[in-house]
Amino acid sequence: MKTHLAASVLMLMSSGAFAEDLGRTLPGEVGRVAPALEAYSNNALFGTVWQKDTLSARDRALVTFAALMTRHETEALGAHAALALDAGVTPAEISETITHLAFYTGWGNATAAATAVAPVFEERGVKAEDLPAVEPDLLPLDEEAEAKRQDFVSSTYGDVSKGIVDNTQQLLFLDLWLRPGLEPRDRSLVTVAALIAAGQPEQMTFHLNRAMDNGLSKEEAGAMLSHLAFYAGWPKVFSALPVAKEVFASRAE
Amino acid sequence: MKTHLAASVLMLMSSGAFAEDLGRTLPGEVGRVAPALEAYSNNALFGTVWQKDTLSARDRALVTFAALMTRHETEALGAHAALALDAGVTPAEISETITHLAFYTGWGNATAAATAVAPVFEERGVKAEDLPAVEPDLLPLDEEAEAKRQDFVSSTYGDVSKGIVDNTQQLLFLDLWLRPGLEPRDRSLVTVAALIAAGQPEQMTFHLNRAMDNGLSKEEAGAMLSHLAFYAGWPKVFSALPVAKEVFASRAE
Amino acid sequence: MKTHLAASVLMLMSSGAFAEDLGRTLPGEVGRVAPALEAYSNNALFGTVWQKDTLSARDRALVTFAALMTRHETEALGAHAALALDAGVTPAEISETITHLAFYTGWGNATAAATAVAPVFEERGVKAEDLPAVEPDLLPLDEEAEAKRQDFVSSTYGDVSKGIVDNTQQLLFLDLWLRPGLEPRDRSLVTVAALIAAGQPEQMTFHLNRAMDNGLSKEEAGAMLSHLAFYAGWPKVFSALPVAKEVFASRAE
Repeated sequence: MKTHLAASVLMLMSSGAFAEDLGRTLPGEVGRVAPALEAYSNNALFGTVWQKDTLSARDRALVTFAALMTRHETEALGAHAALALDAGVTPAEISETITHLAFYTGWGNATAAATAVAPVFEERGVKAEDLPAVEPDLLPLDEEAEAKRQDFVSSTYGDVSKGIVDNTQQLLFLDLWLRPGLEPRDRSLVTVAALIAAGQPEQMTFHLNRAMDNGLSKEEAGAMLSHLAFYAGWPKVFSALPVAKEVFASRAE
Repeated sequence: MKTHLAASVLMLMSSGAFAEDLGRTLPGEVGRVAPALEAYSNNALFGTVWQKDTLSARDRALVTFAALMTRHETEALGAHAALALDAGVTPAEISETITHLAFYTGWGNATAAATAVAPVFEERGVKAEDLPAVEPDLLPLDEEAEAKRQDFVSSTYGDVSKGIVDNTQQLLFLDLWLRPGLEPRDRSLVTVAALIAAGQPEQMTFHLNRAMDNGLSKEEAGAMLSHLAFYAGWPKVFSALPVAKEVFASRAE
Repeated sequence: MKTHLAASVLMLMSSGAFAEDLGRTLPGEVGRVAPALEAYSNNALFGTVWQKDTLSARDRALVTFAALMTRHETEALGAHAALALDAGVTPAEISETITHLAFYTGWGNATAAATAVAPVFEERGVKAEDLPAVEPDLLPLDEEAEAKRQDFVSSTYGDVSKGIVDNTQQLLFLDLWLRPGLEPRDRSLVTVAALIAAGQPEQMTFHLNRAMDNGLSKEEAGAMLSHLAFYAGWPKVFSALPVAKEVFASRAE
């Protein structure tokens, strides 16, 4: 471990506020109760995983925020919002991630996230005009793809719950997904992270394909899985690996 | 959105305390961090979904409370208990829902829910005699159905864990489910909501059938799925839809 | 219920601090909001389940702690850590369980657990030298079994995420699992409990087999399932039962 530590210290020295932010996500009690966990955090997680450029620090911070929000780990969201801001995520993107994941992981996770992030925004002087508009000009719709998606959902579940079929189209695919506050690639990134963190690999095929259509590379997707093992737990990622393997294979054909 | 807003304002005006209660489930920080989420809440969720009579406001409040309790979103349970009381759920029914879901979503969710609800009960002057008795006269048992259920579980899992097989019969089906504090239809309703919110559609077939045997209509079940998408997240409901579709089809035969 | 109560009182009288500890895991609000739940707790759960010697009180306390930590029920972890200490779990074992489950249920669960346990350790005068070393001498490795495991994972997922494949070997199987701070049998026990509590029976086959290779008996595994029904909810255990049945059958061949 000593070699790792030396290397990580060098890397951390090169990144100032960000390194301090990572340290702040680890409460002091960890060292007093589980010194080994503190060492794994500083060496393996902060000193190695977070430093790998297979996925940018900005993407890692966004994905981590999405995972913690999905898991209702609200006590950790303030520190991770600060980390994300220092890693280059904008306040507007954090705001829009919370709005997006209200639909994908539930309203209560989103309202709790807003409560946790509000003091960080206030401390940093974030103003209302820095946040995504309520009714922005929407991105252009891929009408053919949407018609195909809606036809499938409507013909499959229209008889089961017309409400969910209608809301999925009106609120999600004709509105939320077209909001410009978060790049489509990033919207997909936080959605896939949320599905992995929620233990719902069965819903991942559509969204991982969409993420890759929107610009996420295979290498980035693989690095996201590896990163999320620490924050969602190894078993959640091992249940997601077969789905990712299948998506990668189907796209290579 | 402006049209929706106007419509929703009209609807809210007609329902006084209940409309105020809905607003109180949205912390003020939401508007400061994610104004778009605040707008979706007021228009789509409070102004439209909650107003639809495909499922009564009373059922919506009960189902929402069950979902939040299952997800351990304890900071939101006080406001939602108040909402449920104003929507016509009795204190006894909230109490019995907590007891019931201790078994179906874990003791810690139930003890945390009791802690969150206690100040609401105190504020409203709920007394011990308003709550379900510890040892009430039980509802009559459908002995044939219970023998069939127990035979299946006992022959399948008796060798794996005799403890769970015995407790399932003694504590759940010969006791909890026969307690009169919650109508069988409502007991099933909160159970199905809890299974969807917990991401356990694989356990839903038995309980959705039981709910419909106990009086839940297909339309109400569909509306519950649509409602829960907001509180448990869209993907949880999309994993439950195929199970609901299959149950509906099997009952139509 | 009166007979149960009498019996449980007798049993509780014989175990002093432990009985008091069990009572302390039930907040006073439970009796005020749901008296029936209080009665089920005292009679069925504390008075009967916890007293059964199919699984030792020490194992029950360890398994319960693992389940609550996995479910992020942090408000309950302090009382359950105290219960575990009085049931014979050492501070070092609690510390190592937190470190272990950081990997198996996510970093945020572990940091929150450390925060909850710190005051209990302080109150009991636990010192740094009572905790597992950061870099202890590792247990011997079963090289053949590890080569087989790694070959399978590497050939299956090496192309999907090299990061997770490498970290799984370097951090988990060549390091964490060889740390002496927790007996291999107990490390497996908390891992299986965490998988059940997280609703991930699909990841249980490997770890339940490993637990039984490491000394967990079939009877203890069955009692653990029965015990966890109360803390993770009945449906989580019913989704785990078919996996346990299959593992037991495959080992009986």
